[in-house]
Amino acid sequence: MSVEVIAIGGYEEVGKNMSAVKVGDDVVIFDMGIHLDRIHIHEDTDIARMHSLDLIERGVIPDDTLMKEVDGKVRAIVFTHGHLDHIGAVAKLAHRYEAPIIATPYTLALIERTIKAEKKFTVTNPLQVLNPGEKCQISPDITLEFIQMTHSIPQTAMAALHTSEGIIIYSNDFKFDNYQLLSPPPNYSRLKELGRKGVLAVIVDTTRASEEGEAKTHSEKIARIMLKDIMLDPLDEKNGMLVTTFSSHIERIQAICNIAKESDRQMLLLGRSMERFCSIAENMGILKLPATASIYGSPKAVNKALARAEEKRSEYLLVTTGHQGEPDALLPRIAGGKTHFNVRNGDNVVISAPIIPNPMNVANRNLLERRLKSSGARIFTNAHVSGHAGREDHRDFIRMLNPMHIIPSHGSLEMLASYTELAEEEGYKLGNNIHILRNGQAQVFNGGV
Amino acid sequence: MSVEVIAIGGYEEVGKNMSAVKVGDDVVIFDMGIHLDRIHIHEDTDIARMHSLDLIERGVIPDDTLMKEVDGKVRAIVFTHGHLDHIGAVAKLAHRYEAPIIATPYTLALIERTIKAEKKFTVTNPLQVLNPGEKCQISPDITLEFIQMTHSIPQTAMAALHTSEGIIIYSNDFKFDNYQLLSPPPNYSRLKELGRKGVLAVIVDTTRASEEGEAKTHSEKIARIMLKDIMLDPLDEKNGMLVTTFSSHIERIQAICNIAKESDRQMLLLGRSMERFCSIAENMGILKLPATASIYGSPKAVNKALARAEEKRSEYLLVTTGHQGEPDALLPRIAGGKTHFNVRNGDNVVISAPIIPNPMNVANRNLLERRLKSSGARIFTNAHVSGHAGREDHRDFIRMLNPMHIIPSHGSLEMLASYTELAEEEGYKLGNNIHILRNGQAQVFNGGV
Amino acid sequence: MSVEVIAIGGYEEVGKNMSAVKVGDDVVIFDMGIHLDRIHIHEDTDIARMHSLDLIERGVIPDDTLMKEVDGKVRAIVFTHGHLDHIGAVAKLAHRYEAPIIATPYTLALIERTIKAEKKFTVTNPLQVLNPGEKCQISPDITLEFIQMTHSIPQTAMAALHTSEGIIIYSNDFKFDNYQLLSPPPNYSRLKELGRKGVLAVIVDTTRASEEGEAKTHSEKIARIMLKDIMLDPLDEKNGMLVTTFSSHIERIQAICNIAKESDRQMLLLGRSMERFCSIAENMGILKLPATASIYGSPKAVNKALARAEEKRSEYLLVTTGHQGEPDALLPRIAGGKTHFNVRNGDNVVISAPIIPNPMNVANRNLLERRLKSSGARIFTNAHVSGHAGREDHRDFIRMLNPMHIIPSHGSLEMLASYTELAEEEGYKLGNNIHILRNGQAQVFNGGV
Amino acid sequence: MSVEVIAIGGYEEVGKNMSAVKVGDDVVIFDMGIHLDRIHIHEDTDIARMHSLDLIERGVIPDDTLMKEVDGKVRAIVFTHGHLDHIGAVAKLAHRYEAPIIATPYTLALIERTIKAEKKFTVTNPLQVLNPGEKCQISPDITLEFIQMTHSIPQTAMAALHTSEGIIIYSNDFKFDNYQLLSPPPNYSRLKELGRKGVLAVIVDTTRASEEGEAKTHSEKIARIMLKDIMLDPLDEKNGMLVTTFSSHIERIQAICNIAKESDRQMLLLGRSMERFCSIAENMGILKLPATASIYGSPKAVNKALARAEEKRSEYLLVTTGHQGEPDALLPRIAGGKTHFNVRNGDNVVISAPIIPNPMNVANRNLLERRLKSSGARIFTNAHVSGHAGREDHRDFIRMLNPMHIIPSHGSLEMLASYTELAEEEGYKLGNNIHILRNGQAQVFNGGV
Repeated sequence: MSVEVIAIGGYEEVGKNMSAVKVGDDVVIFDMGIHLDRIHIHEDTDIARMHSLDLIERGVIPDDTLMKEVDGKVRAIVFTHGHLDHIGAVAKLAHRYEAPIIATPYTLALIERTIKAEKKFTVTNPLQVLNPGEKCQISPDITLEFIQMTHSIPQTAMAALHTSEGIIIYSNDFKFDNYQLLSPPPNYSRLKELGRKGVLAVIVDTTRASEEGEAKTHSEKIARIMLKDIMLDPLDEKNGMLVTTFSSHIERIQAICNIAKESDRQMLLLGRSMERFCSIAENMGILKLPATASIYGSPKAVNKALARAEEKRSEYLLVTTGHQGEPDALLPRIAGGKTHFNVRNGDNVVISAPIIPNPMNVANRNLLERRLKSSGARIFTNAHVSGHAGREDHRDFIRMLNPMHIIPSHGSLEMLASYTELAEEEGYKLGNNIHILRNGQAQVFNGGV
Repeated sequence: MSVEVIAIGGYEEVGKNMSAVKVGDDVVIFDMGIHLDRIHIHEDTDIARMHSLDLIERGVIPDDTLMKEVDGKVRAIVFTHGHLDHIGAVAKLAHRYEAPIIATPYTLALIERTIKAEKKFTVTNPLQVLNPGEKCQISPDITLEFIQMTHSIPQTAMAALHTSEGIIIYSNDFKFDNYQLLSPPPNYSRLKELGRKGVLAVIVDTTRASEEGEAKTHSEKIARIMLKDIMLDPLDEKNGMLVTTFSSHIERIQAICNIAKESDRQMLLLGRSMERFCSIAENMGILKLPATASIYGSPKAVNKALARAEEKRSEYLLVTTGHQGEPDALLPRIAGGKTHFNVRNGDNVVISAPIIPNPMNVANRNLLERRLKSSGARIFTNAHVSGHAGREDHRDFIRMLNPMHIIPSHGSLEMLASYTELAEEEGYKLGNNIHILRNGQAQVFNGGV
Repeated sequence: MSVEVIAIGGYEEVGKNMSAVKVGDDVVIFDMGIHLDRIHIHEDTDIARMHSLDLIERGVIPDDTLMKEVDGKVRAIVFTHGHLDHIGAVAKLAHRYEAPIIATPYTLALIERTIKAEKKFTVTNPLQVLNPGEKCQISPDITLEFIQMTHSIPQTAMAALHTSEGIIIYSNDFKFDNYQLLSPPPNYSRLKELGRKGVLAVIVDTTRASEEGEAKTHSEKIARIMLKDIMLDPLDEKNGMLVTTFSSHIERIQAICNIAKESDRQMLLLGRSMERFCSIAENMGILKLPATASIYGSPKAVNKALARAEEKRSEYLLVTTGHQGEPDALLPRIAGGKTHFNVRNGDNVVISAPIIPNPMNVANRNLLERRLKSSGARIFTNAHVSGHAGREDHRDFIRMLNPMHIIPSHGSLEMLASYTELAEEEGYKLGNNIHILRNGQAQVFNGGV
Repeated sequence: MSVEVIAIGGYEEVGKNMSAVKVGDDVVIFDMGIHLDRIHIHEDTDIARMHSLDLIERGVIPDDTLMKEVDGKVRAIVFTHGHLDHIGAVAKLAHRYEAPIIATPYTLALIERTIKAEKKFTVTNPLQVLNPGEKCQISPDITLEFIQMTHSIPQTAMAALHTSEGIIIYSNDFKFDNYQLLSPPPNYSRLKELGRKGVLAVIVDTTRASEEGEAKTHSEKIARIMLKDIMLDPLDEKNGMLVTTFSSHIERIQAICNIAKESDRQMLLLGRSMERFCSIAENMGILKLPATASIYGSPKAVNKALARAEEKRSEYLLVTTGHQGEPDALLPRIAGGKTHFNVRNGDNVVISAPIIPNPMNVANRNLLERRLKSSGARIFTNAHVSGHAGREDHRDFIRMLNPMHIIPSHGSLEMLASYTELAEEEGYKLGNNIHILRNGQAQVFNGGV
């Protein structure tokens, strides 16, 4: 039986991830993400109301039209975590396939919410939970397994497709973090076990493959200690205090909560996407907020909360959206004087996020920081660790799984090339058993392990 | 008699240049510029309608309120060239001084236009022409001389104040270019002569002092050859062709005209600031446009011209504003599909300007280029030379003038520091005869040459 | 009584630190360091045998000849920590002053060793211990106090001179680290107390002032966790394992020891400077090595140890010099095949040090890593935290001490300029109460707090 | 008949270029270069005396052992220009093939000299001249044509293999320069003609493919003007004057000669490789030196010449090797005080070469410049243009030749990836008609145009 990996999206960019694995006549799709960056090019893009084909043309979502020519039946649409570049196009594309959506509970809840917000399409695919450590039969020839993994969003899994031709691993995205608060450590022993059984191919994210200096990605434990070091003194001051981080990074938000508990400040989690990710996480019992904390997402509720905080600034800890300086997110709006909360001399702002390297983010973040500073705020920026495996983590990944073939994904050609060089250090060779695919191309494997 | 140099603006930033030189009881002011970058911080700034004090508070114009405490009489306001960071605040500040405005004809024409556009203040200072090579008596003790100089705008002069205590040179901005089309070469022999007579102090721009790699700034002749190499083939193609450069860079625009003449294309100079700088330059006989060329500044006229060009794209050469990707300028608006001209596959775009190093420009320019490319345009970017002296030019400048004191200006503290290191290589020493001033500080020189 | 701060060395470079503080007729000297970088320029420099004046001319040691013209008596030579850029010229310069050398015990032991190795001069200044928390009377008008501080070498103090004109702080170098293994945390409450009493001036190091991204310097605790994460798996493998870090960074070496104890490997600390710093630290009870550990410094002993390690590579943990790839240091010599130990496929190398930013280090380190890799080694590089205060630490420093005047030191003009901008954010102003000095210049303070 | 392109060397690095094209049973080899960078890794490499297999193992020369398994007969070894990364291994590898060496006269002369200097192997392959514009029959099925091309060494050709399956272009290296002194412009019309006839594949160098900012590579005319601007004043001064550039860049050296003729200075071309490239070029009538000029290569002759120049420094213009600061080259030796010529205050040094981006060059050049400066020299550095096509030149190249397949070469994987992205902009697609090969891999084309 032949196995085919079809690169649909995310093989030429960081964004709009989508891959398909065809085993005999059965197809499993992984991810349906969006490419937010393309919306900068086409400013008038209204995702919720636009048709898939228009979004495909604009490069905002993966071009899955090629799937029509794939001679097989889609049996499952699998999501291994809930970031938008992996699930954001689900409401635009999933209805075209008669197949269940499979994910961990938190990812599934985020998908459900995306589907509900959709204005153009009705998505009725069955939603099916799969937890790390569990398997489910996808077709007579394919069993899907979720392996416990860590990343920067809760309930991230690594997917393994067991087939008669060997195991195919979809590992997009992950980090190896042994000390998260909300997730158990990665299941290394299972990875090694699979490696011994015989892995035909891995599809693996290359986000940090080109960052030479960063051998191993540090644990969230490091971020927790950094945050505590930075936050403790400011929490005690009689000034305003704002923290911003990724809304989906519940682990990090939990760390901020735990530090905040040592003060008398009341936490306010503010902003639309902060509300989306955190309230679901709290409802599911993943995020444990302090009893006095509140989450507000709607502009009106946010503004009311900000008005309260403005009056008694030393009694609150604001956790907001806007770490990249995005003009419409909350912290940039606060910094621009567009809300009821005015940054004043002595206020402390903690930005627990890197600048995602992209000229627009660099510019927005620069403007944000200059505005905050010109209002007298003090800014703390270096409390962050990445959510993506570093080069030495990837080396361990390759050594544990010992795959026959490697398909680097989730990046520009330069990033795939960097991963290729890493894999060549481990004895693989481009064109032989490393395969660089472009969106729309496929790699066929004949014969098994 | 004591001489005092007062740093009003531009000593902590690239922008809002303003300096005063006090000789006995008489004061000469140099430049009244704006700091456009500060408008990014305060988005709601409406320069034409706002009061000086508000603009001062926002950092948009120099804080000249300190002049109230200067015990002396302002005798002249001198502008050595017409860039906005040197003349842009004239309509906000000049009326506070009972003194004539002195500049070369082109600079004066630009000042006049700025004064006419002002909505808040009425400026009635007499306007007085001074040409390079000419002198005028400012007060019994001060004679102002304009020396022929080159820069990236026509009729740039270097100013020399002759006083009983020695000569003070205001050299802000300049380059040494021996091969411009529209300007004679710098008057080196006069600089050397002044050097021999005795220069008390120079106030000198440091824009490129920190660019180690760029020993000597290349001549416009180099840009002309580069542009010709780039433009000739595209001019012959049956596609659209757009060029963008600095509106005030009449020399460069003349070079583009001369190249365009070798084709049958009709030149359209488009955009509000393109109209401002070019029509004045043309009326004054500085810029020689081809007979068929047209200049349009108003949005309506621009749009009509673009509609014509859209239909017969191969018959026009569009010269537009927007080289930094500024969202409201013309080329970015064309690239964003907001005009009657649509960039199509095969169109050629020449960007004859560097990215002015600032995160917002980097982001805007990146977006501009990506939009142009995604419409199928071909982009040419490396046809530019700087308008500012390089390190080795500054070394020649110091050697020719041999000043007793050096006051670096026109830059951040890092840039002033770089210039200081250069001057120390030439035997000067910070704190002894190199003086780093902050906006609002003064340096007094007692005793002469 | 007037107070004068005299910049002797280290005000134009990172290296050869030396300052003098004159209070009335009494002078206290701080530091006598070397500038190793200058030896690259003059390759034939033999420090141990050369005369001070030759070394001064080559820029290798501070030019203290100006002290002849200082009208006062040197009462003490104070060293606040034992790095070479602070103590390395002691044997060349101290004998010219009839004054005791004062330092903490570990620093003093390093100074003693330097004096013993000197081939040209005999140094007989009395050596006097001062511990953090202790004071000693230097002259009727001056009392020296050592305040508990942290850095990247044990027993670093911050010095305070108590005078009738106020307190002068010499803070060169330091970091604020609350979680070191071998040092108590900085004595913040004493700093605040001094701030309340009245600090006339601080002389402060600017090493990291220009690193915008690095708000607060992370604690060694972070480095310990990173190292543990990196080292544990490799310690278990049956391959060779090498670690390199700063020889003087006893805190880091202790952390490596503690991690190594969890394995059966025997530690070998190898290399001349490793021997110098570690054996003294061990003898003084600062460094606690595992019972089986050995230190070898002489080439012969090192080679014998390496020969043993070569045979049973999985039984040893080599801690070596050479983290910058310096051609004559041990790890580069091992990598170049010049010792009895050959790097083999599977060996692990941990470089617990950043590249000190300097083109030669970048090149040497690149060559080192390429050689190690081409021998099959796996390299881990990102387990390090700085030993110098970050921008936000400096902000806290200024706020705690609230000095009347700030004298940035220990850096190029660009670095002093960056610190100046930071201090200006805190309300100081260059030329008023921030003073940039060049080597050889002095700042006089008249009148006290 | 099938066509196969075999990547032997230079597909994973900048260096050791070697490719083979097999048409039916006949093979044509292009280039046999060395990879100088690998000698840094293995310091004890003595190229002239070492065996091919050892050099192959060290990565210094291409691994052509795979040619044993190629089922065909090598009919010609073709060199398109004389740089060492293209011809440097000829004496190590050519004797293994029973085939003539074909090149332009200057390239052939350089090859002859390399063969004569070889100590290990005897090379007896016939040497055969082919001039641009000429063809020669290689086998019944293959005709080789040389097309006039420009680069940074004289007599560079582009090779075209005419076969029944279409034309194969070997374009490695080139630039499009219409204004060289010593070479006619590239034969664009022939390129377009070949494009119309049908190009099966191009093998093309990617050296500058990743340099986004550099749209089109500027002509040597630009470098000539820059050099003249820089050199004229210093030539007139009564100080020493040194220029360094690539020894093989005869075009540039001719430009320097022409400028020097306007002064009374006598030119001395100094250094071993300066002698090698220039004396051959002069003997062949390519380089026209002034009558008074001399070339010295042997250390003894160089030193005698330097001694003369030391005495009457203002009467000479020294043109030396060492632009990258290589420790053993002449200018670095002069700067280090190791010759009879001492750099003095006021001497002028022109470095007409970029830093070839590599950490060791950056470090060596930094050291060179610091040494020169500390001796009082003035350094001019920005008079250079590249010898490699820029992105827009490559776009023109692709449009003119319109090849069916593109094989990027001469670079790291990142560079090949950049070229791939450029080619994809032109409608090609990786894996379909762009082929990234690793050293040792081959691409087979079945069926023709």
